[in-house]
Amino acid sequence: MCPFRSSLPTVRTSAFIDISYKITKKVIGFMELERFFSEQVKAMRSSEIRDLLKITEGREVISLAGGLPDPSTFPREDIKKIAEDIMDKNWERALQYTATGGVEEFKKQLISLSSLRGISKIREENLFVTVGSQEALYMLANLLIDPGDQVAVEMPTYLAALNAMRLRKPNFLGVELTEEGANLDQLEERAKKTRGKLKLFYTIPTAQNPGGVTMGLEGRKRLLEIASDYDFLVVEDDAYGFLVFDGDAPPSLKALDTEGRVIYTSTFSKILAPGFRLGWVVAEPEVISKLEMMKQNVDLHTPSFTQYIAAEAIRRGVIQSNFPKVRAIYKRKRDVMLDSLEAHFPKSASWSRPKGGMFVFAKVSEKLDTGILLEEALRKGVAYVPGASFYHDFSGRNTMRLNFSFPPEEKLREGIRILGDLLKEKL
Amino acid sequence: MCPFRSSLPTVRTSAFIDISYKITKKVIGFMELERFFSEQVKAMRSSEIRDLLKITEGREVISLAGGLPDPSTFPREDIKKIAEDIMDKNWERALQYTATGGVEEFKKQLISLSSLRGISKIREENLFVTVGSQEALYMLANLLIDPGDQVAVEMPTYLAALNAMRLRKPNFLGVELTEEGANLDQLEERAKKTRGKLKLFYTIPTAQNPGGVTMGLEGRKRLLEIASDYDFLVVEDDAYGFLVFDGDAPPSLKALDTEGRVIYTSTFSKILAPGFRLGWVVAEPEVISKLEMMKQNVDLHTPSFTQYIAAEAIRRGVIQSNFPKVRAIYKRKRDVMLDSLEAHFPKSASWSRPKGGMFVFAKVSEKLDTGILLEEALRKGVAYVPGASFYHDFSGRNTMRLNFSFPPEEKLREGIRILGDLLKEKL
Repeated sequence: MCPFRSSLPTVRTSAFIDISYKITKKVIGFMELERFFSEQVKAMRSSEIRDLLKITEGREVISLAGGLPDPSTFPREDIKKIAEDIMDKNWERALQYTATGGVEEFKKQLISLSSLRGISKIREENLFVTVGSQEALYMLANLLIDPGDQVAVEMPTYLAALNAMRLRKPNFLGVELTEEGANLDQLEERAKKTRGKLKLFYTIPTAQNPGGVTMGLEGRKRLLEIASDYDFLVVEDDAYGFLVFDGDAPPSLKALDTEGRVIYTSTFSKILAPGFRLGWVVAEPEVISKLEMMKQNVDLHTPSFTQYIAAEAIRRGVIQSNFPKVRAIYKRKRDVMLDSLEAHFPKSASWSRPKGGMFVFAKVSEKLDTGILLEEALRKGVAYVPGASFYHDFSGRNTMRLNFSFPPEEKLREGIRILGDLLKEKL
Repeated sequence: MCPFRSSLPTVRTSAFIDISYKITKKVIGFMELERFFSEQVKAMRSSEIRDLLKITEGREVISLAGGLPDPSTFPREDIKKIAEDIMDKNWERALQYTATGGVEEFKKQLISLSSLRGISKIREENLFVTVGSQEALYMLANLLIDPGDQVAVEMPTYLAALNAMRLRKPNFLGVELTEEGANLDQLEERAKKTRGKLKLFYTIPTAQNPGGVTMGLEGRKRLLEIASDYDFLVVEDDAYGFLVFDGDAPPSLKALDTEGRVIYTSTFSKILAPGFRLGWVVAEPEVISKLEMMKQNVDLHTPSFTQYIAAEAIRRGVIQSNFPKVRAIYKRKRDVMLDSLEAHFPKSASWSRPKGGMFVFAKVSEKLDTGILLEEALRKGVAYVPGASFYHDFSGRNTMRLNFSFPPEEKLREGIRILGDLLKEKL
């Protein structure tokens, strides 16, 4: 017996029934689908960076636009060996479904990796594995933001985080950057003006993307005091925390957090390989359990196979012992870019001098709009990201983000020379 | 020069300013975070299956609850060889960021794989790669459903799809299953009653999860006629399309779609390895471009490394030549489960006789509630999924889903015997 009723004879009933509610077909053959899309789709913005990457695909363009790691930083031989070993010894679990929050062995290793950013006293229940830190940012936006909520962001800040938050329709409060990170007086003023309604501050305190600035220890302590005084959450994006090459990175905000107020996220994209799409969150178990519920809906879990690879890469010290090499490569490339900017950019321009990360952020004459300039730059063979994309209010129209991590050194020099010449020509 | 203003001297200003808007700290030390969560969080339901998997983790329980493939179906040696070859020859691209919609080589192979389900005349622009088909279902729910929209679903249907759709707060219209798939007269009646407002029908026409039924070719044709007549979209979940072991699977709905009305999704979880978390969508370019915009927010792209592995597994015929083995294993296990049900379940029970997939769906006496019975079953050493989770209205309280793909044959027999004894004891 089948538990379902047998179907009725397959009479083509629709030919006989009242057709008054039938829709007149609007098209012959393939139909127009736009009308089926949700309201949310209208709030979506395509990432300018990703679109740019597409434009430049397969063309002879020097791209200062993306945020790709230098492939020479990938510990290729180690990854190959680890993948082989996993397929020999742990294949069954690496190929099978796993827990939504992440592979247990990986979480154990993440405790050790996070400790390098000063984060101590955490357990597996404080950890959550995501498909890159982008998924963490997306899920946190959904978890924490209702339409109209007050959300503070740096000006400029990471555009894909902005876009993920935009879907939730918050009221953004901009906090300008200083040479020492977010302007904390301004943050406090913003918090005060919301009369206790500021819900969270999204910040990239270390090697800020795109701003290139790093907040010092004193600033970090004060930021947490302000968050405590005005009772808001801090979402700390530590994507570049392991990539500080001038001196030591200050401890993460999470390391200084005594109230469970900081939700920390970082990524393997810059320290192992972006192709694995691995990120993680450190937060209170209350937050982790909500992330877990959400991720069951989004994608069930992050791929197991790559989690096992990354766990082994930490356990064997592959990632840790790779840091000096990665930092040296990026420091040299940063220097090449700064020297080239000095040599070729007009005197009216200014730019960040990042102690870490992958980007220089430049401000050109206010007479110029880098969004308009881009097409000409692409025609001359150079891509960059117009700065307006990094501002919640699309201001900063005379700024641009320049990537130094991916292009070879000679291309960095050539790209900046071409851009400098174009800027001078336009002034 | 830095483009950002120097910060003001780091005076601890918050001590001096008006504190009237400061929040009184509610807790000493670690704080309560519940109040920061969004409204959406309240709409989230944890997946009963995932929670169950957790309960049974590391315990001596025969799990008929999950939907795990039999590990002996994983083409382990082939995957190992492919991973090695990729790390030798294509490591730079496999470890790097890739396009949001998927790796081009993978999409080419997906055209070939989809053709085995009858889908022809598609190009790369019709394809989109996701983190398992769960991510496809989640994104499609966000893309297509606004609160209050009319959405038809089968009763029962895949619970993680239901949960993903629930976040969008649709008005669900239930369509009962017959032995030949969804009751199409009922679907038509539902469509008619909405006066043209039915937006989409989510269906699993082949080896339905959990119902175990498969819609025949004539039913498929009529379904598409109804969709056309009443102008709604069809989201076809073809997770088990390659896993039909009694006779040939009918072509997918997408294969019969002449209007671009069907959005197709399938997964590598049952035909290669779930640990890779790979799924794909076949749809009109209009839909694909919206998926792309959404995925830029969600996780930028699906891991590159595993996409290259799956592409090679198709190109080398590893997946295709594995089908007979996979089907034979599941057919045998299905038979073991059906025989055991016949031997041990009470006469008042009925169950599906699936021609494919991984599950049998059983209906027990209406006097029993399988949700309440579960705790006792777990104590006796058997897990299953109570059927109510698979109904949008949580009806079907006397039903249960039984997985036959994962447990070894002797465990299947033992598990069904224990369950049967428990059912008889309760009657």
